[in-house]
Amino acid sequence: MSVIHGQNFLMVPGPTNVPDRVQRAMHRNSTDHRAPDFPEITHSVLKDLKKIFCTETGRAFVFSATGTGMWESGLTNCLNPGDTILTVRLGQFSLLWIDMMERLGFNPIVLDVEWGEGLPVDKIKAHLMADRAHKIKSLCVVQNETTVGVYTDIPAMRRVLDETRHPALLMVDGVSSIASLPFKMDAWGVDVSITGSQKGFMLPAGLGLLAASQKALKMSETSTYPRCFFSWRDMIVNNDVGYFPYTPSTPFLHGLREALDMLLEEGIENVWERHHRLATATRLAVKAWGLKPIAKKESEQSDAITAVLVPAGFDGQEIVATAYQKYNLSLGGGLMKVKGKVFRIGHIGDINELTLLGTLAGVEMTLRDVGIPVKLGSGVAAASEYLQSTGVPLRGLNGVQAKI
Amino acid sequence: MSVIHGQNFLMVPGPTNVPDRVQRAMHRNSTDHRAPDFPEITHSVLKDLKKIFCTETGRAFVFSATGTGMWESGLTNCLNPGDTILTVRLGQFSLLWIDMMERLGFNPIVLDVEWGEGLPVDKIKAHLMADRAHKIKSLCVVQNETTVGVYTDIPAMRRVLDETRHPALLMVDGVSSIASLPFKMDAWGVDVSITGSQKGFMLPAGLGLLAASQKALKMSETSTYPRCFFSWRDMIVNNDVGYFPYTPSTPFLHGLREALDMLLEEGIENVWERHHRLATATRLAVKAWGLKPIAKKESEQSDAITAVLVPAGFDGQEIVATAYQKYNLSLGGGLMKVKGKVFRIGHIGDINELTLLGTLAGVEMTLRDVGIPVKLGSGVAAASEYLQSTGVPLRGLNGVQAKI
Amino acid sequence: MSVIHGQNFLMVPGPTNVPDRVQRAMHRNSTDHRAPDFPEITHSVLKDLKKIFCTETGRAFVFSATGTGMWESGLTNCLNPGDTILTVRLGQFSLLWIDMMERLGFNPIVLDVEWGEGLPVDKIKAHLMADRAHKIKSLCVVQNETTVGVYTDIPAMRRVLDETRHPALLMVDGVSSIASLPFKMDAWGVDVSITGSQKGFMLPAGLGLLAASQKALKMSETSTYPRCFFSWRDMIVNNDVGYFPYTPSTPFLHGLREALDMLLEEGIENVWERHHRLATATRLAVKAWGLKPIAKKESEQSDAITAVLVPAGFDGQEIVATAYQKYNLSLGGGLMKVKGKVFRIGHIGDINELTLLGTLAGVEMTLRDVGIPVKLGSGVAAASEYLQSTGVPLRGLNGVQAKI
Amino acid sequence: MSVIHGQNFLMVPGPTNVPDRVQRAMHRNSTDHRAPDFPEITHSVLKDLKKIFCTETGRAFVFSATGTGMWESGLTNCLNPGDTILTVRLGQFSLLWIDMMERLGFNPIVLDVEWGEGLPVDKIKAHLMADRAHKIKSLCVVQNETTVGVYTDIPAMRRVLDETRHPALLMVDGVSSIASLPFKMDAWGVDVSITGSQKGFMLPAGLGLLAASQKALKMSETSTYPRCFFSWRDMIVNNDVGYFPYTPSTPFLHGLREALDMLLEEGIENVWERHHRLATATRLAVKAWGLKPIAKKESEQSDAITAVLVPAGFDGQEIVATAYQKYNLSLGGGLMKVKGKVFRIGHIGDINELTLLGTLAGVEMTLRDVGIPVKLGSGVAAASEYLQSTGVPLRGLNGVQAKI
Repeated sequence: MSVIHGQNFLMVPGPTNVPDRVQRAMHRNSTDHRAPDFPEITHSVLKDLKKIFCTETGRAFVFSATGTGMWESGLTNCLNPGDTILTVRLGQFSLLWIDMMERLGFNPIVLDVEWGEGLPVDKIKAHLMADRAHKIKSLCVVQNETTVGVYTDIPAMRRVLDETRHPALLMVDGVSSIASLPFKMDAWGVDVSITGSQKGFMLPAGLGLLAASQKALKMSETSTYPRCFFSWRDMIVNNDVGYFPYTPSTPFLHGLREALDMLLEEGIENVWERHHRLATATRLAVKAWGLKPIAKKESEQSDAITAVLVPAGFDGQEIVATAYQKYNLSLGGGLMKVKGKVFRIGHIGDINELTLLGTLAGVEMTLRDVGIPVKLGSGVAAASEYLQSTGVPLRGLNGVQAKI
Repeated sequence: MSVIHGQNFLMVPGPTNVPDRVQRAMHRNSTDHRAPDFPEITHSVLKDLKKIFCTETGRAFVFSATGTGMWESGLTNCLNPGDTILTVRLGQFSLLWIDMMERLGFNPIVLDVEWGEGLPVDKIKAHLMADRAHKIKSLCVVQNETTVGVYTDIPAMRRVLDETRHPALLMVDGVSSIASLPFKMDAWGVDVSITGSQKGFMLPAGLGLLAASQKALKMSETSTYPRCFFSWRDMIVNNDVGYFPYTPSTPFLHGLREALDMLLEEGIENVWERHHRLATATRLAVKAWGLKPIAKKESEQSDAITAVLVPAGFDGQEIVATAYQKYNLSLGGGLMKVKGKVFRIGHIGDINELTLLGTLAGVEMTLRDVGIPVKLGSGVAAASEYLQSTGVPLRGLNGVQAKI
Repeated sequence: MSVIHGQNFLMVPGPTNVPDRVQRAMHRNSTDHRAPDFPEITHSVLKDLKKIFCTETGRAFVFSATGTGMWESGLTNCLNPGDTILTVRLGQFSLLWIDMMERLGFNPIVLDVEWGEGLPVDKIKAHLMADRAHKIKSLCVVQNETTVGVYTDIPAMRRVLDETRHPALLMVDGVSSIASLPFKMDAWGVDVSITGSQKGFMLPAGLGLLAASQKALKMSETSTYPRCFFSWRDMIVNNDVGYFPYTPSTPFLHGLREALDMLLEEGIENVWERHHRLATATRLAVKAWGLKPIAKKESEQSDAITAVLVPAGFDGQEIVATAYQKYNLSLGGGLMKVKGKVFRIGHIGDINELTLLGTLAGVEMTLRDVGIPVKLGSGVAAASEYLQSTGVPLRGLNGVQAKI
Repeated sequence: MSVIHGQNFLMVPGPTNVPDRVQRAMHRNSTDHRAPDFPEITHSVLKDLKKIFCTETGRAFVFSATGTGMWESGLTNCLNPGDTILTVRLGQFSLLWIDMMERLGFNPIVLDVEWGEGLPVDKIKAHLMADRAHKIKSLCVVQNETTVGVYTDIPAMRRVLDETRHPALLMVDGVSSIASLPFKMDAWGVDVSITGSQKGFMLPAGLGLLAASQKALKMSETSTYPRCFFSWRDMIVNNDVGYFPYTPSTPFLHGLREALDMLLEEGIENVWERHHRLATATRLAVKAWGLKPIAKKESEQSDAITAVLVPAGFDGQEIVATAYQKYNLSLGGGLMKVKGKVFRIGHIGDINELTLLGTLAGVEMTLRDVGIPVKLGSGVAAASEYLQSTGVPLRGLNGVQAKI
């Protein structure tokens, strides 16, 4: 056994790598969160956060919490105890959200799909259509189910709501999609957009981020669900004057400021495109290995994470453990129903071509280690072929970094 | 106007100064929170956290949240909807906790005291005694009311509960006391101990810390209050095997590890003693200025924060603003009922004699600026006199840092 | 004995406190120092460095070394072996420079003054006048003799050179003055300006900084003194195209970039004024203690450091040791001839009013500890009086930091 | 053109990647370098530095400078003006050292070899044998010529000196070998060992590190070469009591302390073995591409850097520029005589298998970009094959990092 050198290849689908710029920005003493100049940072991050959610009409929130907390915040601020929710169980994260709905006393109507499939649009439409009394108060769906690497069709959700003239709120878990995969709050008519800091936002876990439409904000004014820590009203009253209802994590706000700068400097559409390119390369490698993603439809294969089906007779958990123990490579394992059946490569956040290719080489060696016969270099070759042919200069001739 | 140089004197009663050691420990990339060696850090911080709560029989929790979240966690895990709570309104923080109790549907019996006073022990006893049916499920009190700098008598709460043989849970907000002022969970029979990362723990805000007694844990098993993000059970199931129910903030865990090292290296009783010494110096300065703390009883004057009464005709808010704008000194202002009537000096966390004396000099100049006639140097002299005569070497003759 | 908390009050006259901004800027991986975009940082720091030296016509150099290395660089690039130098021994640093001149085979004519005195202008003039053959190739003087806190009259040196029409180079050790005390290379006709990173530039030690006039550069072209590491020519050839002759310390270059930003944002004249104000406050405190600086002439009392004479019968070394061991306060001790006879308070670099007042309070307690009868608070009062009356808002009413 | 994401792959042969542990250790304010406890750090790093040089009888030095400065320090402390030196020009770095020898007035006898060859042992022996009068005062050789990736045979140098009973000092430039490739000062009878911080020591550039044998130290006592900044005597006098002759860079000392911890935790022989393994993988990739190193003898191919010959008709500079501009991959270019003819892959310092494989994939794409027909994935496959088969767990089953 040897000693660990170099950096861990953190290729789980979150938490993602925190860029040096962001790490630096967070290295600071706490600051006086009631100081007269504190509102500058509050207003600044809330304003730019909206740009990443792609909303002009909505309102953004920053909580000291995680995406799980934002699930709770979304549900408890808009809905009333016992309210009916239409939702879909696509994998572990939608499963956990549904578990929360039940525990918090809501009444979820759960549509199940085989893990690896996307949203059952027709069934959803049928449920909405059948709900003449509009008992369904919210349609809650996960945009990117991290368990299986399935990127769902959120615009279709808006469409069926519109087609059925159903007034249900559209609440979307965008934890592993917002700030990395296409998400357009206003254009798609999303009412509650839920995410966290540790995925596309490239921060450590610790912030829950949420945006609410005017319709959702309005519902929150009359909702009687008991809430306090996650209350939007408390936040609004304080944020409006630049403060928070309880002590915010000031280093995190500075980190968020820097991450927003990075995202906006690049342009959110370029961020999406960058993720698409690295994801495509990953999928080409998987194909070259003779394996395939659990995500069935090509159009639904996630640009943030690829969950690869492990051939029969092999154990995905052993792959993940070996990669970590032998190559200092962190992959995601299969969760719950697909435990052992998949391993997951995260390609989200602050990585680049060479990080991905080093990762793919690490996966190849690992597959060999556990006995799966893959040709070393085959996946790397397929991914390289694509990346080389689609690559563009990051810098000009004199090395100066290119502006888009 | 000029340019700001040197460091902000962050002398609010929280967030407190984050020591360089802790800042360094937090400067790191995220890590794989499902890795096989991740349980090391989980078990390590939870074990040592108990030492700071002074509990061997209880259980410690770390949430990505704040002290406010821990209020909610304590209430919703142990109690049932509509449960009666006996509590005291001592200042803004107890007020906010009571507000939460009401909003979450509990039934608080609120005893009011004049702000600056401590717990009305006899009245509390009377209420407990009168409650033959044991409708009161919890006695909820704040140990250190940060608004007024009053440090309450928690052992007296245990005593009256024992004397009245009342089975109510003893739930204590120790947000601005635990890890800085004497707090002995087991010895005092506290059932739920609530705090956050940004005061005595010397971290930025962002972690909610809580410890529960076996009695509280038992009650949480049958409590029917809907909860999810703040659920103890989810945390227990995951923590027991070294993980968290949702992505933890790994840099924060490393920061907490370092802060615990610092506290344990010093010894928690020495930490309390250190705070007492700096607080005493502060009170001597206040006296020398001809002013006095709002906290009435000497024995209840907090060792974490001194709220100084502003002479009639002057505005505490102007003091705080001037200190910040002219001397880069962050003081606490008066909140709510005492807005404008006090200013607050935090002397909690990672400061030392010279930080405090610089602060006192800054307060003196500020008082002059707003027109309050104090003799410059008078408070510093009184504090110095005490600090010099009670000071002991931090290092031996060769400069090596002393062990206790 | 106790455990150290809070921050060390680093009040030696260098190394000075490194601002958080600069520490952050330096926290980065090494970068490829031959990359095509590397010249950006090289050109950027060299250009702005000239602004701090107040030269438009000269050329700036950055070496991986210290001020001592720059002494050597200045001497060996401009002069020839055996060259005669006129110089003055004012304290330990001029003494060491003279020692270097001798060891490197130059021929220094040394004028001695009592430590605490400035430059003997008339004697210097007499020497220059007498040197009809112009054997004296350089007049080498220290602008701020850190041992004694004497700030010398560099414009007078230019004047006597001009009045005597003497062509000697004017070489100035500005190690503890440049970027903190007035220094105007072009206006004063300085030919070689020598400094380091760890004083006014607010960086750690590790960079030698130097500026050379056209006259000095010209002399360096014909100088035959053997040199290599400190060669200007090697540096010029490489710097001109944006690189360095050997691997530069890239984190230091980024730190220098940030420090230059800070200095230029403030404006160099404001930097000087800020130092003057804090120095004045220090001198008022010394006076209030009934003590005095070793620097005799008021006009020569340094704005960077005050060397305080210790009353007979007391030991300056004990003061410095006690301050460090008991109050975590770093003062400068007396060096060589004045060992034990003075202690030194640095008031240079990134400090502010409250840092200084905390320091003065620490000195008062220390003086008491060693038995010198000073009235606690007296120095703080005198300094506060001045600082309060001369203080201006650092921030506007809304707390926004003021621009000059 | 796009925006840069993820980390630069810094695969030049120095400066090498600074591990996070070291970056963190360096993030601190300056400290009082005359404090009574400062000697702890001085003694600690000097003592452990000797372990890396593999010397018990020698003495280690730390200068604020670079390897180039250590060349000067070695020469000027041991030799006298005009002394004859026997040396070999193997590439750019030996060339520059020879240039320094000449400029500093020494008399180098220069043996030239074709770039890519190692030391001409027989010729050296012949020169030593012919030198009956022992005019040759030092044999100066480079252990790892970074220009060409040639690792020379230092034990052979000791052997020929012994065989010819020649008293010349053996001075070795180990800038890119010490702390990464086998170097045994005592065992090999090296008298002056020269290196810098930015290669095997994994720090930024900024420290010159040197070790001297007793023989060299003795010679330095009588050497008349003028020196000051690089004087060993000044350093010895101060280091002996724990201090430095001029302000040391305290953050760098703390960084060095951490880097020494890392090297000693691993064990220096394991460090060498680790470099050998990654170098072997690199060479297998080069072979798979149909290319070859410029280093002719297999036994002399460096484990720190591989300089790859570019096929006729292609330009190595274009390879390096493309890798940087398109893939954010920093490779080394050809220097001087081999400019355009080679490109260089550094595999020294804090990297791991996946960093290397990502790099090799990046090189493959780059070679394609410039028109050299290599099969994508071929080098990665060859390197992976070797790394997979020779890999051992970095962590045990529970993920705990293995001790050797």
